[in-house]
Amino acid sequence: MRLVVVGGDAAGMSAATSVRATLPDADIVVVERGSHTSYSACGIPYYIGGQLDRAADLVVKQPEAFRRMGIDVRTGAEAVAIDAAAKTVSVRDVGSGEQRDERYDRLLWAAGAHPQVPSLPGIEEYGHFVQTLDEGEHLRAHLESLPEVRHVVVVGAGYIGMEIAESLVRHGVAATLIDRNEQVMKTLDADMACHVQAALEGFGVKVALGESLLAVHGDHGGCREVVTDAATHSAQALIWAMGSKPNVELPRAAGCALGATGALVVDEGMRTTVGGIWAAGDCVETTHLVSGARVNVQLGTHANKQGKVAGLTLCDLPAAFPGVVGTAATKVCEWEIARTGLSEREAAALGLDYQVASFSGSARAGYMPDPGKVFVKMLAEAGSGRLLGAQLVGTGNVAKRIDVAATWCQLGVAVQDAQLFDLSYAPPFGGVWDLLQVGARKLTKSLGLSPSL
Amino acid sequence: MRLVVVGGDAAGMSAATSVRATLPDADIVVVERGSHTSYSACGIPYYIGGQLDRAADLVVKQPEAFRRMGIDVRTGAEAVAIDAAAKTVSVRDVGSGEQRDERYDRLLWAAGAHPQVPSLPGIEEYGHFVQTLDEGEHLRAHLESLPEVRHVVVVGAGYIGMEIAESLVRHGVAATLIDRNEQVMKTLDADMACHVQAALEGFGVKVALGESLLAVHGDHGGCREVVTDAATHSAQALIWAMGSKPNVELPRAAGCALGATGALVVDEGMRTTVGGIWAAGDCVETTHLVSGARVNVQLGTHANKQGKVAGLTLCDLPAAFPGVVGTAATKVCEWEIARTGLSEREAAALGLDYQVASFSGSARAGYMPDPGKVFVKMLAEAGSGRLLGAQLVGTGNVAKRIDVAATWCQLGVAVQDAQLFDLSYAPPFGGVWDLLQVGARKLTKSLGLSPSL
Repeated sequence: MRLVVVGGDAAGMSAATSVRATLPDADIVVVERGSHTSYSACGIPYYIGGQLDRAADLVVKQPEAFRRMGIDVRTGAEAVAIDAAAKTVSVRDVGSGEQRDERYDRLLWAAGAHPQVPSLPGIEEYGHFVQTLDEGEHLRAHLESLPEVRHVVVVGAGYIGMEIAESLVRHGVAATLIDRNEQVMKTLDADMACHVQAALEGFGVKVALGESLLAVHGDHGGCREVVTDAATHSAQALIWAMGSKPNVELPRAAGCALGATGALVVDEGMRTTVGGIWAAGDCVETTHLVSGARVNVQLGTHANKQGKVAGLTLCDLPAAFPGVVGTAATKVCEWEIARTGLSEREAAALGLDYQVASFSGSARAGYMPDPGKVFVKMLAEAGSGRLLGAQLVGTGNVAKRIDVAATWCQLGVAVQDAQLFDLSYAPPFGGVWDLLQVGARKLTKSLGLSPSL
Repeated sequence: MRLVVVGGDAAGMSAATSVRATLPDADIVVVERGSHTSYSACGIPYYIGGQLDRAADLVVKQPEAFRRMGIDVRTGAEAVAIDAAAKTVSVRDVGSGEQRDERYDRLLWAAGAHPQVPSLPGIEEYGHFVQTLDEGEHLRAHLESLPEVRHVVVVGAGYIGMEIAESLVRHGVAATLIDRNEQVMKTLDADMACHVQAALEGFGVKVALGESLLAVHGDHGGCREVVTDAATHSAQALIWAMGSKPNVELPRAAGCALGATGALVVDEGMRTTVGGIWAAGDCVETTHLVSGARVNVQLGTHANKQGKVAGLTLCDLPAAFPGVVGTAATKVCEWEIARTGLSEREAAALGLDYQVASFSGSARAGYMPDPGKVFVKMLAEAGSGRLLGAQLVGTGNVAKRIDVAATWCQLGVAVQDAQLFDLSYAPPFGGVWDLLQVGARKLTKSLGLSPSL
């Protein structure tokens, strides 16, 4: 069996490693456009801001280590065409420009996503991207090359944008975070996102919401100012941290179907609609288990799992990626932020009948020193009581607590049952009623379900 | 309806409050032997050691506040007999010794548990108990009354004993923790408990295992030394923190059945085997949902939930306490400790066929500053793959992560499914594969189940 993998990060390398272990005789080629394999893209903001010293720390496994395992990793190599009938991929060497066809029995497309950049004056010239580790290294080198960096504008107030802005402020750079939306983190509801915004502002990040980028001005090769429809921000660098678009052009041209999200349609085994072509990671659609909708969620955790699943099905072993429930977490200053399931905005858009519980509590027992503050928002479906989603924003160790709600969402657990689950309790970790169970109780009550404790 | 509740802490007051809300006309009497109601017994160690200043901080609601709600709380009042046929409880005033019968339509027995103290020389005279807040206040007053406290012996290396020993050391007192077992925290397996012991010793607690108490010697009313079968420990106070025995004498005499654990048999609605008598909290048996066995687990979290359930069923509303899965957590120095389900020792004793995954990892992504250290032990059942139990010991915020495993145990989730759940990931909170999912993967593999990622 000859497997060609396009994309050498989480999904691609998880699959290649898995196939290597299952089929010792398989011929495995990985084609990666950049120079790194298998790195933590989520760590890039910490590297840019200098919390992490070396880009190499983010690399889980170097190309050479994969080669020693018998995986033919080719960096600086870009796939430029797929011929699904002939079962070949055309690969161009980024350095030399040379091109050759690679024959495959099975192809795994794991080429991720790329920043969606509008064509505005100056953005090509002055904008920096943080999608890949190569880009992260380039940006950090640029920041360090400036005699003195005073102002940086970050466009996009999502996870990555917020993390970078915080990281910059932590290192003495004035960061302005711009977003065209009226709130940060649009994966949260506005009434939860406001706490995150307050944390960012309290830390010294300038947050400019409802502003759309118009142009970037500079001179002598350096950025000078960023112009939006509302203001002009002086800036020695512009970092683009907006959402990314799945890389699907080649498989689409080869006949692979795309879903409504613009990502590749795959079955539970990560097979596209074209025989012999698999896909995994940021470029595919998957099922949202709460809404039932097909979604494109670009997160390393899914890419790793989907890569493992593809690694098995590529070897004709049974495996199925069940879907996602929209779990995500991040940390901004001392605040931990996590969400799972549907936000209220999403539930409303779907026309679901639900109730909301929104309250605050403490991360530890209220009488303990430094009890911490946690804002909680949860929603459950009328009739069934099924938990639809949860959002947590707080100090103290609250983010990983979302995993309990994620498990409830994954399994369709109803709040009236969840309130009596045997969750842990000790004063350093919370009150005698777990916060998620306080929410479950409130929802059970407001939905008129039994037992209403 | 006239409800008499015996015991004014978690279970009793939860039930009384709930009945008050449901039946505005009910006549509710609460009989409490001590002087406090509704307090956090789990906070007593922190109060004894001085981390918390005032005992009142542990009290959720004072008797007077309950009285204002129309609940007739009588402190310093001890139940001395139940006449189930006449539906009366004899109540003695602890101060005056006066006794009178209280008529009830329904009785809730929520009298908790009491320390099981062996009859050894000096223990009655010099031993201090920490079961109730009154005892905690008495102990702290005693410690503060001594001109200089240098040595204290704590007997019992469970949650409470460890927390007290740490708390004492934190305040400059040399604490020796004695246990007749060969490990601390026998709710953990020995290979996990050793990490906790090392943490205690590293913090300065002297841990003396495999030692049985023989006698306590003192003079002029003060404790001088504690003699075990292995050593003599000098001590100005002895604190008894061994397991407690359910308070069941009165209901037993009234005909209520006891289970093999020595606690009261109740149904899911918290009804004892005698008509008109309910029971909840530390004095009852419940079902362990992993083993199916009847168990007596004395924890505030169960007492609160059972009290709420009893509060509904006492009003003839539907409610059922589903049982427990053995979840518990504590913090020792910088180490967080949590467990759920069955330990390996328990699974082996039940004759279950299982595999174990035992490994260590980091609480945050390995490349982050201060990644933390976590030891993980999980076990799953052969054939089904059902998660049987999990234990976590680590620095960083690991304890509440047990709630995910607790939910899996509660719902009978199999490790092969759990490994693909959508749990949160961000570098400040862990690696891209959640530690519990790393364990689930390892167990899936060693059990030969599919998909073996």
